[in-house]
Amino acid sequence: MENITLQIEGMTCGHCKQAVTNSLQELNGVENVQVNLEQNNAEVTYNPNQVSLEQMKEAVEEQGYDVKN
Amino acid sequence: MENITLQIEGMTCGHCKQAVTNSLQELNGVENVQVNLEQNNAEVTYNPNQVSLEQMKEAVEEQGYDVKN
Repeated sequence: MENITLQIEGMTCGHCKQAVTNSLQELNGVENVQVNLEQNNAEVTYNPNQVSLEQMKEAVEEQGYDVKN
Repeated sequence: MENITLQIEGMTCGHCKQAVTNSLQELNGVENVQVNLEQNNAEVTYNPNQVSLEQMKEAVEEQGYDVKN
């Protein structure tokens, strides 16, 4: 398992937090997600053999947020 | 049918808009809802014989927003 902190723009409320959390948790290989609204980021624990940064970015961006990594 | 504009605090994003819209549309007697995020309000067309302002306020406040009417 590895950890990465995604820098995410556009999250404003609890609904946004939930949307981003769900989009990442649905990916195979993502084990844990912790979104911090105040810091505009998401800490993700994942298996790099199963899921890539690019896939995580796409999942979040599909929800309407920008990922700055 | 009558119209009322609810002044709502705390809506920040499209998810909030949808949550408020749904909460009002689910009430018997509410015919139409138009949430305007920029103006922090919701224009509601309703049948006053079926639904009261108090019920509309409760529905929105249950979603976590304040109604200032």
